[in-house]
Amino acid sequence: MQKKNNTTNKEKSGKPKAQQRSKAAQAPQSKQPKKQRSSRPTNGSAKKYRKSNELPVKIAFLGGLNEVGKNMTLYEYKDDMFLVDCGLSFPDPEMLGVDLVIPDFSYVERNADKIRGIIITHGHEDHIGGLAYLLKTVNIPVYGTKLTIGLIQGKLKEHGLLGSAKLNEIAPGDVITLGGFTVEAIHVNHSIPDAIALAIKCDCGTVVQTGDFKIDSTPIDGGMIDLSRFAQLGDEGVLCLLSDSTNAERPGYTESERKVGESFEVLFRKAGKSRIIVATFASNIHRVQQIINVASSLGRKVAIIGRSLENVVNISAQLGYLNIPENVMINADLINRYPAENMVIITTGSQGEPMSALSRMAFSDHRKVEICPNDYVIISATPIPGNEKTVGKVVNELLKLGAHVIYEKMYDVHVSGHACQEELKLMMGLVKPKYFIPVHGEQKHLRKHAALAEGMGISKDNIFIADNGYVAEITNKSIKSGAAVPAGRVFVDGYGVGDVGSVVLRDRKHLGQDGIIVVTASIDYETGQLIAGPEVVSRGFVYVKEAEELIEKARKVAENCLESCYYSNINDIGTIKSKLRDAVSHFVYEQTKRSPMILPIIMEV
Amino acid sequence: MQKKNNTTNKEKSGKPKAQQRSKAAQAPQSKQPKKQRSSRPTNGSAKKYRKSNELPVKIAFLGGLNEVGKNMTLYEYKDDMFLVDCGLSFPDPEMLGVDLVIPDFSYVERNADKIRGIIITHGHEDHIGGLAYLLKTVNIPVYGTKLTIGLIQGKLKEHGLLGSAKLNEIAPGDVITLGGFTVEAIHVNHSIPDAIALAIKCDCGTVVQTGDFKIDSTPIDGGMIDLSRFAQLGDEGVLCLLSDSTNAERPGYTESERKVGESFEVLFRKAGKSRIIVATFASNIHRVQQIINVASSLGRKVAIIGRSLENVVNISAQLGYLNIPENVMINADLINRYPAENMVIITTGSQGEPMSALSRMAFSDHRKVEICPNDYVIISATPIPGNEKTVGKVVNELLKLGAHVIYEKMYDVHVSGHACQEELKLMMGLVKPKYFIPVHGEQKHLRKHAALAEGMGISKDNIFIADNGYVAEITNKSIKSGAAVPAGRVFVDGYGVGDVGSVVLRDRKHLGQDGIIVVTASIDYETGQLIAGPEVVSRGFVYVKEAEELIEKARKVAENCLESCYYSNINDIGTIKSKLRDAVSHFVYEQTKRSPMILPIIMEV
Repeated sequence: MQKKNNTTNKEKSGKPKAQQRSKAAQAPQSKQPKKQRSSRPTNGSAKKYRKSNELPVKIAFLGGLNEVGKNMTLYEYKDDMFLVDCGLSFPDPEMLGVDLVIPDFSYVERNADKIRGIIITHGHEDHIGGLAYLLKTVNIPVYGTKLTIGLIQGKLKEHGLLGSAKLNEIAPGDVITLGGFTVEAIHVNHSIPDAIALAIKCDCGTVVQTGDFKIDSTPIDGGMIDLSRFAQLGDEGVLCLLSDSTNAERPGYTESERKVGESFEVLFRKAGKSRIIVATFASNIHRVQQIINVASSLGRKVAIIGRSLENVVNISAQLGYLNIPENVMINADLINRYPAENMVIITTGSQGEPMSALSRMAFSDHRKVEICPNDYVIISATPIPGNEKTVGKVVNELLKLGAHVIYEKMYDVHVSGHACQEELKLMMGLVKPKYFIPVHGEQKHLRKHAALAEGMGISKDNIFIADNGYVAEITNKSIKSGAAVPAGRVFVDGYGVGDVGSVVLRDRKHLGQDGIIVVTASIDYETGQLIAGPEVVSRGFVYVKEAEELIEKARKVAENCLESCYYSNINDIGTIKSKLRDAVSHFVYEQTKRSPMILPIIMEV
Repeated sequence: MQKKNNTTNKEKSGKPKAQQRSKAAQAPQSKQPKKQRSSRPTNGSAKKYRKSNELPVKIAFLGGLNEVGKNMTLYEYKDDMFLVDCGLSFPDPEMLGVDLVIPDFSYVERNADKIRGIIITHGHEDHIGGLAYLLKTVNIPVYGTKLTIGLIQGKLKEHGLLGSAKLNEIAPGDVITLGGFTVEAIHVNHSIPDAIALAIKCDCGTVVQTGDFKIDSTPIDGGMIDLSRFAQLGDEGVLCLLSDSTNAERPGYTESERKVGESFEVLFRKAGKSRIIVATFASNIHRVQQIINVASSLGRKVAIIGRSLENVVNISAQLGYLNIPENVMINADLINRYPAENMVIITTGSQGEPMSALSRMAFSDHRKVEICPNDYVIISATPIPGNEKTVGKVVNELLKLGAHVIYEKMYDVHVSGHACQEELKLMMGLVKPKYFIPVHGEQKHLRKHAALAEGMGISKDNIFIADNGYVAEITNKSIKSGAAVPAGRVFVDGYGVGDVGSVVLRDRKHLGQDGIIVVTASIDYETGQLIAGPEVVSRGFVYVKEAEELIEKARKVAENCLESCYYSNINDIGTIKSKLRDAVSHFVYEQTKRSPMILPIIMEV
């Protein structure tokens, strides 16, 4: 067993102290006398534990709680900090015009000199999507497995950060030292290869963070989750477990990814002589692998369509995560040269995203693929809550074009990447944590996961339901809430990071709902007399060509208002504008029962 | 059996010729010799059928196909027309600022002199919500059952139409004559009382339109759907069946509404001493009845909160559709005077609608109800596709306040009002139509329903999958598509009906996504020289206080552009505006990668 490395030369940056856990430690220890295993926590570390009661390990949640997305956790012990994950989330419909949402980095910036690095658990957007923005702020070392680093490189390249970033490849079993912490990577199953959980140790004890995981006993590649390592850690004594709550509402077990392959075999045969189009998540390499395997076994060629998918497939193939038989893949431009019965197209858009390849195909707007009657379309995904309607629209349009569509629960064409209730309980049972913090999920997921933990015998007082900005302070004696840290959401819109806030969003909402009426007038600088205008221009309010009379009346209202200001000797521009706004707004509401934004502009000549 | 009434004095308006189907006809006829029943179609009507081949009955779909909502169907035979239902639909998220959507009435207006009336199958918004707008256009007689008419009266009152509308109450079994048509109302089960199907007869044959229906063998009130009448019609011979496709994707049977009552009994006991809050659809009177019954049996008082719910409950109680025990109901203002264990609150917002009572309670924004820890909240509805996220939000907020929340499929607290696959097949099996048209549903529902019909042995050629605007022309020999009729969607926004169209929506979308930059300048009328400005004002673009530099630069770009126009002798206002728009737009995109709407306003002084 790799000993805790209480190194004193804390690395502010640079290469990690990555060490391979010895093979002996990796092998199952079930034949060892039980006493030896369970005695460890009270053994050499007894003194340490007693001492550690004074200083807690702190876990600050910078994202990922009460939301699905932008996961980011900060660990702190004495003068050392490190981060786990830096994800993005996609904007809610009310975040108008926002491209993506990232965590608030101000607490990280404030503590930049203490942060020893960031460990990424896997390559999904909600775990890596904010990294480029973070590294622009603090250029700390990044640790991740091979595929994760490969995907990060792609992102950093887009941001021009590839040269400056300090990327470090680790493998399951590796232990890295980050100041007073050591962190061990543990292999887990998920819907992307190369995902890891973390065993985080400091003088205070061991914290296990599962990352996103499921228990797949027959995964496509990479082997089953390293349950024995979780068991060993549990036997050694785990202070706290942070576990994935995404599927905490779902009873039972998540099916193996292999199940989907079996469904593909059945469906591909059913498709007969039709062209097959499969939409899936770009990052689900194992899914892509299975589609390629089945296609190849039936003598079909495969084309990849969709930028993100092409990107991930290329990186995965280069790094050896995707095994592509020879003469199977064809260029997307050549699709129409092959007969329908010899083609499988893998594409993006399984969530009905309006700009995705499948959506464009459905609305007859794709450059390369025109849906034909009898095309056999498989949507290999379940709609993420909120996407049901967009997915439904795509299905409807495909059906109108005469395609056969396999969607939602019609066949087992999708399995989740997250553990269901029985798996979550198994994880708790193995790790046997003293304290439990459900992470990755909305309130309903966190609560349900907490209830499962209670059911497993973890006392309510030892379960901590956190929120973004919360800090859990943990010693061997207690878990409690520390002083909150800033952990809001930062909107990215175009090049702008954080320049769109609540005021701008409120205006966008108003503009989007009711449109705008601009009232302009020129007045004499000295006398205040109306020189030109007022003009009334509207956008997004009414169809102007059919509402000339209304607009003319509004202009008259504005004119009367300006004249009345002039005759009342009101010449403060602010007051005039305010009166104009009120007058026009009142008139328009009376006439139409609508409240467009009124924007008065007075120019002094 | 009520004979077909080939009346020649076509009623343009006024009272219907409502006649009660004789009791003999209503009673099950299973003991009659089979021959007698099955011989009917080839009996007296044989000559008629032969003659009718020449002129088809036409069914025009003015709404409700390839959508869920705004159901409206027009029947035409020779010189007579009548309508079935006139619903609204709620705007999609991309219909910014639109309050509701109604059918396009232009085809109805054009044929106003031929339309003998409108029959409403039941009182849901997607069947009555457009009626007030229709009656403002053509004041035709309206037929509906007691509760339906009651609910319509409430709506017409809001629109000031109660005095002028010609409302006619009918009951299941009644036959009304509308020109060359007779229409018989048939009792069906649904999630609102008093729903009817229609048997529509003309010289061409019989068309059965189910309306929304389910088969509930143990309904709360009103009795089971009149299956024997459908069977009789089937034996007599039905030319065409139009049937409800809403649940065509769901296998099996829809559970009885009574099931929900059983769940309430269990849950109300489980709630112990907690206050109980149940959210449900306002119109589900049977659900409300069951909640009241269980509450009353446990000695709890009931308060109703939510305007639409109060409204429907009042009407239903007045008309005898809701049986309220004495001393159970209390005024919503008195809720806090009763101990938690003695209260049940019935409220709206089961779909997470942001302005609904439950949503306000969840976000601690309700005037009368403050959610307390241990409140026991039951959301007695399944999220309608697209509402999953808003419902989830409400659940999360309630949980954060410490409430227990029963939602979605946790218990049987909701059953659908629509027939599932086995019921749909039963309906087809009873009615035995020659032609089949699936209605009420998106493409995927219509297709699935059509596939069920094929499975029942109806030939593909005899199944007509229509769209809004399609006209089915049916004779005894064929069903075919006639010339299309206008059947778009009309947006209602405030007082405006139809004045918001694609141009306004495009502008609203643009404004909502990116905001607006207004550039104003005054130029000399004669010389074209700049007199005042340019000024640059933005809304919904950036947070102005932190972007002063950017705005000033944009102003400078506008100024340079105007000067260059002046020196190049460009004095056409249109050209100057266009150049201004291009220059500012280009600059802003280069700087921010955003594309706000640019609105140049030039005033000539």
